[in-house]
Amino acid sequence: MSVIDLSKQVALGIDIGGTNTKFGLVNHRGDILVKGSLPTDEYETPEAFIDELHRNIQPLIDEHCGKNSIVGVGVGAPNANYYRGTIEQAPNLPWKGVIQFGDLVSQKFGAPCKMTNDANAAALGEMMYGAARGMKDFIMITLGTGVGSGIISGGSLIYGHDGFAGELGHTIVKPGGRKHWSTDSEGSLEAYASATGIAITAKKMRVEFPDSMLNEYGEDKIDSKIVFDCAQKGDPVAIEVFRYTGQKLGEALANFVMFSSPEAILLFGGVIKAGDFILKPTKLHMERNLLPIFRNKVKLVFSELDEADAAILGASALVWEK
Amino acid sequence: MSVIDLSKQVALGIDIGGTNTKFGLVNHRGDILVKGSLPTDEYETPEAFIDELHRNIQPLIDEHCGKNSIVGVGVGAPNANYYRGTIEQAPNLPWKGVIQFGDLVSQKFGAPCKMTNDANAAALGEMMYGAARGMKDFIMITLGTGVGSGIISGGSLIYGHDGFAGELGHTIVKPGGRKHWSTDSEGSLEAYASATGIAITAKKMRVEFPDSMLNEYGEDKIDSKIVFDCAQKGDPVAIEVFRYTGQKLGEALANFVMFSSPEAILLFGGVIKAGDFILKPTKLHMERNLLPIFRNKVKLVFSELDEADAAILGASALVWEK
Repeated sequence: MSVIDLSKQVALGIDIGGTNTKFGLVNHRGDILVKGSLPTDEYETPEAFIDELHRNIQPLIDEHCGKNSIVGVGVGAPNANYYRGTIEQAPNLPWKGVIQFGDLVSQKFGAPCKMTNDANAAALGEMMYGAARGMKDFIMITLGTGVGSGIISGGSLIYGHDGFAGELGHTIVKPGGRKHWSTDSEGSLEAYASATGIAITAKKMRVEFPDSMLNEYGEDKIDSKIVFDCAQKGDPVAIEVFRYTGQKLGEALANFVMFSSPEAILLFGGVIKAGDFILKPTKLHMERNLLPIFRNKVKLVFSELDEADAAILGASALVWEK
Repeated sequence: MSVIDLSKQVALGIDIGGTNTKFGLVNHRGDILVKGSLPTDEYETPEAFIDELHRNIQPLIDEHCGKNSIVGVGVGAPNANYYRGTIEQAPNLPWKGVIQFGDLVSQKFGAPCKMTNDANAAALGEMMYGAARGMKDFIMITLGTGVGSGIISGGSLIYGHDGFAGELGHTIVKPGGRKHWSTDSEGSLEAYASATGIAITAKKMRVEFPDSMLNEYGEDKIDSKIVFDCAQKGDPVAIEVFRYTGQKLGEALANFVMFSSPEAILLFGGVIKAGDFILKPTKLHMERNLLPIFRNKVKLVFSELDEADAAILGASALVWEK
């Protein structure tokens, strides 16, 4: 019987975003041995993209893994399907249709490849290396340009029947509400609680309040960072933008809690830089909408992982997942 | 090594409702060998109730199990906690506070006892003996006086961190909407899609339409059965009551699908007697609110189990659950 030295094993984690792709070699303890990135949107075919990935990464594998190879490749990507190893109809990626991405990666790197969507990968990373260590039931909500989610129940990701579970950003929080810029749905969580949604709310609210600091910026300049800057300077309208966002988010979280009764909800992504401006109203409205048996039990916390590394760690965590 | 003859093993299933408690001895195939019932609300203490249960059931065990005893007891009850074996703060039961119900039953019957809420038990029964046989991911929605739910993911019930997961009837489908008669929450699914909610909708709508057949009944007579009778006779207002109910239910189901991506949603309980009057609008509004990747994939079906037996089968299924 040969004893496997886990500490020497290395996984490749790849996080594919609409603009950039990040990658890293990660050991079992979650140390990123080396990392890098390349643009996603400059390659017309997935094959060309994977060729370039391989050209970038193989020398790093040779350098860091010695005569061993990597144990496997984990990929986090929008609309990635865990069961089929595909990327399907991803609106923000340059490659259309259903792509057998996992097979292509596996052939190129000579190692097994597992895939899931980026938010699911982030949840795994958080469970292995972040604020959710030791937890078996939690929900990860990623608040970036969009709103993603990964749901851990009984220690495992919920993939659902077809591998697409956990699209909480697209659940409807206000029936007949704000139209989503890309899905056309009305009143989805993403339409309010994403950075994009926050900018829309700010642009609407500042019109009603000509004195607001938010009016000092051009229409195309308003983003969640500027709203945060104005809130920090005490602008009541900017503060109200986050309060309103937190209300919608909190109402949605209450529904999620009554679904899977998690120990914690972890918030992650650019929007959480707003800190208490968003956290406090979110918590208030979550608690308000919960049945009494769920109240004051669910921890609402920010992710502990560095945002730049979390995606790589999360993708690599797929390789170690049982 | 002794071989266990599964076909000879018998479980006791007990379903506790606010008014009546049903029980039955069930074998591994789901045959109910014998069943009975007794009132729930005539016993001041859980001990007195369990004594009476035992007095009723022990002779049946002696008769049907020969010299063997039962393998275990499964209990479905409102606010029952799977992890702790308790019934906690159940508003519709006569016993208040936190009751160590599982221990009491186990001591009395000399067999292990497992408990969960009634809708979770129904979901297990449906997976073992009903319309969900062979499914690993589905959601059971019980539409009776209230709205309950049981969520199966990867072949197991989702219990959540504290054992109270799956309270989908209390998720908010219309923020700021109809106030719930007992929880005080505003716009919960139960406030619209339960038999109670349907009666409220009917009483509101008939005021606007003096010609509706619904106006032929006294205020205290209006219930979901009368609404169904009027709908069958072609009353457009009664039909609209179900359409509106189905819309709210369908919107809620869309959110549930984007959470756990089930293969099917099973509807169960008195309200489904309304058939297509409720099923068609429910399906329409579910599909409308789904992201395209989920559309036309999720089966929306009625339970196949006889309502009177389902509760007993579901409770007994807890005993066989791995």
